[in-house]
Amino acid sequence: MTRIAAFHVNGADRYGVVTDQGIIDLTPEFGDRFKGLKEVVEAGALPDLAAAAQGRDPTWREEDVTFLIPIANPEKLICIGVNFPDRNAEYKDGTKDAKSYPSMFIRFPRSFVGHGEALVRPPESEQLDYEGEVTIVIGKGGRRIAREDAYDHIAAITLCNEGTIRDWVRHAKFNVTQGKNWDRSGAIGPWIVPFDRPEQLDDIRMETRVNGEVRQQDRTGRMMYDFRYIVNYVSTFTTLVPGDVIVCGTPTGAGARFDPPIWLKPGDVIEVEAEGIGILRNTVRDE
Amino acid sequence: MTRIAAFHVNGADRYGVVTDQGIIDLTPEFGDRFKGLKEVVEAGALPDLAAAAQGRDPTWREEDVTFLIPIANPEKLICIGVNFPDRNAEYKDGTKDAKSYPSMFIRFPRSFVGHGEALVRPPESEQLDYEGEVTIVIGKGGRRIAREDAYDHIAAITLCNEGTIRDWVRHAKFNVTQGKNWDRSGAIGPWIVPFDRPEQLDDIRMETRVNGEVRQQDRTGRMMYDFRYIVNYVSTFTTLVPGDVIVCGTPTGAGARFDPPIWLKPGDVIEVEAEGIGILRNTVRDE
Repeated sequence: MTRIAAFHVNGADRYGVVTDQGIIDLTPEFGDRFKGLKEVVEAGALPDLAAAAQGRDPTWREEDVTFLIPIANPEKLICIGVNFPDRNAEYKDGTKDAKSYPSMFIRFPRSFVGHGEALVRPPESEQLDYEGEVTIVIGKGGRRIAREDAYDHIAAITLCNEGTIRDWVRHAKFNVTQGKNWDRSGAIGPWIVPFDRPEQLDDIRMETRVNGEVRQQDRTGRMMYDFRYIVNYVSTFTTLVPGDVIVCGTPTGAGARFDPPIWLKPGDVIEVEAEGIGILRNTVRDE
Repeated sequence: MTRIAAFHVNGADRYGVVTDQGIIDLTPEFGDRFKGLKEVVEAGALPDLAAAAQGRDPTWREEDVTFLIPIANPEKLICIGVNFPDRNAEYKDGTKDAKSYPSMFIRFPRSFVGHGEALVRPPESEQLDYEGEVTIVIGKGGRRIAREDAYDHIAAITLCNEGTIRDWVRHAKFNVTQGKNWDRSGAIGPWIVPFDRPEQLDDIRMETRVNGEVRQQDRTGRMMYDFRYIVNYVSTFTTLVPGDVIVCGTPTGAGARFDPPIWLKPGDVIEVEAEGIGILRNTVRDE
């Protein structure tokens, strides 16, 4: 599969294709036309990047660059809440019936870091938690997109560690906004993979590990609201545009679920993996 | 007071100073340096615009331009939920205690239109509702801004009709996201007023009228979480940057409050007014 990443090296933001031998920097060739991967997606040029990388030697070693979140400045970054069986039960609030519509909230890009970076645990809370999620990047905009057309509007897929400051999620009666928007509390990446075939999303295996221990494991085929539904539903109320990012929900098994809860602490290594996308790996540090 | 507006005329987005005689277009003078009012705010140049407009004849009549939302592309657009006495009681959910922290949610700029434009009632719902709110624009960024310093970080004030599709607010168990983000369902404006003195925010009179009938009336001095608190609290979890917009909560009296509820309908005229800012006036049309 083609892996296209945004990264920072030698004082500049760049993008290119990631191979097992290293990263092929495509900024020299495409940077004049496309400032970043959002602009590449807007132009439908992901295949051009993939083609340009064919047969080229790598420019950088992975360890020489700092990975950035792939789409630095999406117009929208929407997260779907409770979206896997059993997870509903994790909210011990006495409401047992499955909802008819997905819960969703919005995050600011600055609440995320790139692959390999440390998530930041702030002094205000010890409750930094992980949530591994498959994430879609919109390629073709639209409003009221039919479910059967939804996949035509997805340009790429990636992963999210939808890191959460759990006690701040419950600060208010409604809305998880503040617990979901701490600076550098989550991660997106490691790269985006162009989306061409339904099998890339329909029923892929997802897993989240903390220090090698499996904490979340499920398949996207079990999502309560599948990717097609999500694109249709979100585009009912808002016009989707190229580069919009939708984080599609986490399986059961976040740290809040354990009794007592197990929060992330400095030095932990969290890996979010999904079949056909890769592994998003992050550490934790205290602010 | 100085009123600085963003507007569209003759095919271009422009900005300038609004006077009783008309609008003084300042794009010819400042457009090269500042693409829009966000860039003006970032540069701390609102006083420069005000000074440049002194003694100048208006370029445009108000009726010749289409007002835009003043900050077209804020990094953050945050709305504070329940923030006035009595309003808590409007949520008939059996939880009576005042919360310790404000509820908040995020809106996308595309959910707002400018002054004078029609709010859009979508075919999916008849429950378009108004909420009049005083709104602040951040001038100086920061993290963990002390309450006593908060006013130093506010560059300007404006108004918001935080229009809501009420039944979609309750689609999910948590999070009002989808009911608060319908395209063109709310409004911000009519302009921004540079903020220099505490009296501009501390205890100003707010009023919302529908077809001339007073529906909401209160004073910012009665807010449960005042402006200083909001800047401090929000900046605890996220770094505020220049141009960030915070919509600070609505008094009791939205249409949902009536029994039966009174929803907005095509042809209605909604006016959100606050002392020292002006009147944000919008109509309603069916999509």
